[in-house]
Amino acid sequence: MVMTLENISCQKSFGGWHKRYRHRSTSLNCDMQFAVYLPPQAEQDAKLPVLYWLSGLTCTDENFMQKAGAQRLAAELGLVIVAPDTSPRGDDVPGDPENAWDFGKGAGFYVNATQEPWSRHYRMHDYVVHELPALIEANFPVSDKRGISGHSMGGHGALVCALRNPGRYQSLSAFSPITNPMNCPWGEKALSRYLGEDRSRWKGWDACALLAEASERLPILLDQGDRDDFLETQLKPEALEAAAKAVGHPLTLRLQPGYDHSYYFIASFIDDHLRHHAQALHG
Amino acid sequence: MVMTLENISCQKSFGGWHKRYRHRSTSLNCDMQFAVYLPPQAEQDAKLPVLYWLSGLTCTDENFMQKAGAQRLAAELGLVIVAPDTSPRGDDVPGDPENAWDFGKGAGFYVNATQEPWSRHYRMHDYVVHELPALIEANFPVSDKRGISGHSMGGHGALVCALRNPGRYQSLSAFSPITNPMNCPWGEKALSRYLGEDRSRWKGWDACALLAEASERLPILLDQGDRDDFLETQLKPEALEAAAKAVGHPLTLRLQPGYDHSYYFIASFIDDHLRHHAQALHG
Repeated sequence: MVMTLENISCQKSFGGWHKRYRHRSTSLNCDMQFAVYLPPQAEQDAKLPVLYWLSGLTCTDENFMQKAGAQRLAAELGLVIVAPDTSPRGDDVPGDPENAWDFGKGAGFYVNATQEPWSRHYRMHDYVVHELPALIEANFPVSDKRGISGHSMGGHGALVCALRNPGRYQSLSAFSPITNPMNCPWGEKALSRYLGEDRSRWKGWDACALLAEASERLPILLDQGDRDDFLETQLKPEALEAAAKAVGHPLTLRLQPGYDHSYYFIASFIDDHLRHHAQALHG
Repeated sequence: MVMTLENISCQKSFGGWHKRYRHRSTSLNCDMQFAVYLPPQAEQDAKLPVLYWLSGLTCTDENFMQKAGAQRLAAELGLVIVAPDTSPRGDDVPGDPENAWDFGKGAGFYVNATQEPWSRHYRMHDYVVHELPALIEANFPVSDKRGISGHSMGGHGALVCALRNPGRYQSLSAFSPITNPMNCPWGEKALSRYLGEDRSRWKGWDACALLAEASERLPILLDQGDRDDFLETQLKPEALEAAAKAVGHPLTLRLQPGYDHSYYFIASFIDDHLRHHAQALHG
């Protein structure tokens, strides 16, 4: 299978390169864009580990690369960072009928949809876990060491992708994740539409439920701001903490006083996450 | 005179605070917004120095704060950063008749306009050099030590504000500045409209011309990407270099290979600029 990548842009950043690409996705049946940060070490024939970053509602591949300030330390640590988009895109792809920002385009929730009309395109889990890494590993100087992290809906995505696929990732972290989508408004809306009303089918896409039965105990670093407007209604880190405690899953939950849900929060702690990933991926 | 600041937002960032304010500007005859980054030291009754950052064409107070990644080191160095908007704003303020992005709103060029209809509002020099610092110094725990920097049109602004006002700033730097607006398309368009067709009046707003007659020799740190699309037509660092050489003005011009005009470039070198300013301002 030939996988064609079209380079859209190329910008030097901290001695490395921020590049954006367009390609046809077979998982999603549409054209997709993603961004990759290649640290300076990528020009030295090294096989570098990759951190996949999953963004939150309404985001594209650009938000993290522009606002998180991750490149400085990634350049030092020799980490490649890949930022996919947050949903399938294009005129052929159905979006939310009411044009809401918490479902449909920009809100793929990193699941494989089973319900019409979503199932033809909304298969972000397969895209993020399989198709995109295959593309990255075929086209860039990277190893098969993979870390995954993300923010909010993307924090949920990181947890679920890692917990569903033991052995696939060597490091895991999240910022302000939706930890228990079965029990919050954003999650209930998305899962009921993408997967149908039968809640038993949602368990495979809920970090709390997955953690209870995980066969792998990959340590989780989780940062959450305590002035985050979505903390109590949507994010519920205490649910993940309880689930982790029940089964002895290693979770470092840091409630950061004064911080909100924004990229100002992410930027403040991204270095800790990069070090967490680098330690596992280079180790 | 009572100067009322309305706080718009407040977000924790690297242990300090990113805050945005709205106020009535007497220089500009309109409501204006600006952003301030207060490092953690601001809560310890310290009188901190202030770095004023002037943004480029089309920007607002938000671009630098979101994309430059300056807060991490500013928090360490104890620097306050203030980012004003790039022009007067509002329905009452005339913009470019052709809705161009290089003149009018988002493109104040940091001059005091003398021509109708611009002269009633487009007085960004007075706003940046006098009104805004007075407001900052009356409302925040800052000293009267001031640095100034900026990007592109804002790099021009930083150079011109400092060179026109000896003694007012203790440190100066620029990214990709328009060094010689009298001799480039962006500058000629803006200066001819804001100041009229008589080119002799433009000299007071041109860094190369001002440098020749400056009474103060404040050292300049200047970074410029060599893959910047605007380098040859609009920015012309070699003109400033020649002007500096002719009079012995201390200029450190660094042509950075591979870098473009974007915030990825700024982020890559902002730490060097923050250290340049902190050394002068804390010294």
